[in-house]
Amino acid sequence: MKILCVNAGSSSLKFALYEMPECEKKADGTFEKIGLMGSFYTITKDEEKIVKQVSLPTHKEAVEILLEELVNLNIVSDINEIEGIGHRIVHGGDKYSASCIVDDKVLNDIKDLSELAPLHNPAHYVAIKCVMDMLPNVKNVVVFDTAYHQTMDEASYLYAVPYEWYEKYKIRKYGFHGTSHKYIANRVSEILDNKNLKIISCHLGNGASITAIKDGKCIDTSMGFTPAAGLVMGSRSGDIDVSFIPYLMNKTGYDINQVASDLNKKSGILGISGVSSDFRDIVNGRADGNEKCALAMEMFARRVIMYISYYNTLLGGADVICFAGGIGEKSVEARELIMEKLYPLGITFNNEKNLIRGEEVEISGSTSKIKCYVVPTNEELMIVKDTYNLIH
Amino acid sequence: MKILCVNAGSSSLKFALYEMPECEKKADGTFEKIGLMGSFYTITKDEEKIVKQVSLPTHKEAVEILLEELVNLNIVSDINEIEGIGHRIVHGGDKYSASCIVDDKVLNDIKDLSELAPLHNPAHYVAIKCVMDMLPNVKNVVVFDTAYHQTMDEASYLYAVPYEWYEKYKIRKYGFHGTSHKYIANRVSEILDNKNLKIISCHLGNGASITAIKDGKCIDTSMGFTPAAGLVMGSRSGDIDVSFIPYLMNKTGYDINQVASDLNKKSGILGISGVSSDFRDIVNGRADGNEKCALAMEMFARRVIMYISYYNTLLGGADVICFAGGIGEKSVEARELIMEKLYPLGITFNNEKNLIRGEEVEISGSTSKIKCYVVPTNEELMIVKDTYNLIH
Repeated sequence: MKILCVNAGSSSLKFALYEMPECEKKADGTFEKIGLMGSFYTITKDEEKIVKQVSLPTHKEAVEILLEELVNLNIVSDINEIEGIGHRIVHGGDKYSASCIVDDKVLNDIKDLSELAPLHNPAHYVAIKCVMDMLPNVKNVVVFDTAYHQTMDEASYLYAVPYEWYEKYKIRKYGFHGTSHKYIANRVSEILDNKNLKIISCHLGNGASITAIKDGKCIDTSMGFTPAAGLVMGSRSGDIDVSFIPYLMNKTGYDINQVASDLNKKSGILGISGVSSDFRDIVNGRADGNEKCALAMEMFARRVIMYISYYNTLLGGADVICFAGGIGEKSVEARELIMEKLYPLGITFNNEKNLIRGEEVEISGSTSKIKCYVVPTNEELMIVKDTYNLIH
Repeated sequence: MKILCVNAGSSSLKFALYEMPECEKKADGTFEKIGLMGSFYTITKDEEKIVKQVSLPTHKEAVEILLEELVNLNIVSDINEIEGIGHRIVHGGDKYSASCIVDDKVLNDIKDLSELAPLHNPAHYVAIKCVMDMLPNVKNVVVFDTAYHQTMDEASYLYAVPYEWYEKYKIRKYGFHGTSHKYIANRVSEILDNKNLKIISCHLGNGASITAIKDGKCIDTSMGFTPAAGLVMGSRSGDIDVSFIPYLMNKTGYDINQVASDLNKKSGILGISGVSSDFRDIVNGRADGNEKCALAMEMFARRVIMYISYYNTLLGGADVICFAGGIGEKSVEARELIMEKLYPLGITFNNEKNLIRGEEVEISGSTSKIKCYVVPTNEELMIVKDTYNLIH
């Protein structure tokens, strides 16, 4: 059975086609700069990569071209071979705690939740509508970034603000990267053949979050109402003292949207280093003696150990800490900096194993009180699996 | 030698008179509602308490009456017996890392730093000017809430925001309650006869902060640019996701000052419980089955263990955890809730010792990996001691 995975952003659309239940990827690709000048798409099949410049006024054209190219490139012999489509949805609010098949109600909910994810949910809605129009007999499944975190209790998901802000405006912690954290938790349970683990899952990429997991369920997570909270990220500040905002606005004349934009796009390791939001550039900068890059890395690592330390206590002592995401899987330097600081938790570190990049590997030492693993994540596969399980 | 301690707020002035070096308190009192209707003062000497309603248009009248009453009530036989005055100053910016004798430069700095503490520093400035006018031969000493935290390194005191916000506008973590944390660190070093301790000092009152201390020096602290950051407090939110602010402003029509005010005055345990900002009321509410009070206490305790857990790791394993402040010294219930959650750090708990309120006592069990103490704090005495040491 062929399953298509679709991840529609405000100006992009990523896809992957899988053969299920074999979990075999047949092709993937991206449509970029939708609605903008210079739009193009890339499709990769086997080792072959196609790049074409093309006009993409809306997501509709991207979906049309995608379905045509899947046949033209012999990825499918007939478009009706596709039996299910899984969509990545950023925000499911507090309504969705699991993936589900799309119907009118689900579609309306995704639209309504645009208020909480104004950059993403409208694009998701449009993409689902397009494929439903073009492939009316195919079942669509939605997989929410927030769903996995719906098991948090209110002491974890509420902020200590006037309670009516929650009741009236739904201001609470939602958490994101849920599909990735769920994948990691499942994989660790497989590795250790144990479903009743206390896991600290660190998804460290350009966006980054840490989740405390007990018996497969999320207990707490570092992102909040938005993905800007918690860790120091590529260009996001993570936790700050909100009370400097009025002072900053008064000093600069910025309005609140300008401040929020700077906290999302000009902060994090980019803001501190002045060099880049890409962790690899910061690592290189540090190696070249750039002190701001070293500082940015240290700030990043301290915030990571803050959440790991808290979640270790909250979980009543973690069994496993996992690293995933671009930085977590590939940055030997980031893992070293983090792991070295964790010795008060009884963690020991295998320097040699840590040199491996991008592979599943245990990086804790044999005497470590908490096992530490690198577990490459795969949100795409998780979406395809959820889709397959719901429709077959 | 008699030393006067002065703590001037925006509409109040607190004082205490000490005989030094005996550290014997002779009297204390408060002038309330300065510049407002219904102003009054109270002075306590021995067991006797005087309360008088009186017009207090400015801090000047409060200082005049104070100096008169000290003689009238035979607290001093002559006002010139006072040889030094110690002033509590909220904000010393990054200029002051220790207490110092007031001269013109210091006075101007305090005025200039009003920008960072608009409610407090102007009142401090006025109070110092008043006593200097009235007692021109007496030396004045300033003791800053921020000074003790100046030993933080930049990875702890910077926010991951555009670096120029620090360079141009001095946006960084300053920390507060420094005088209290220093007192606690000194006292613990005395108790254990060891100056090279790793201490986590928890000052838990209506305002609350936690400081990581190594060899007597602050390494990190939970309050930030303002005292609103970090822990869940009486009416302050502590850390939140700043990115919900634009959404909230859009929903409510509030401006940023309204939001900041609500985060300082209507949040914390008051915001969650809807009952009170006083922890005793929340404890009583929980005992009466009020679920929101129980929730507020749980949220308070979780944030406390978040910072304790982080600082334990940052310090490389703490030797001592101390509780002080109104809640830390007197709330058996708060300490129990916190201590019970800390077992993953190897902490055991002496339930019986914890029942003692307001006294210096060890509350950890004999097998505890980290010693836990209640250490009643005394900022006033610290100010008087610093003053005495600088002038005698």
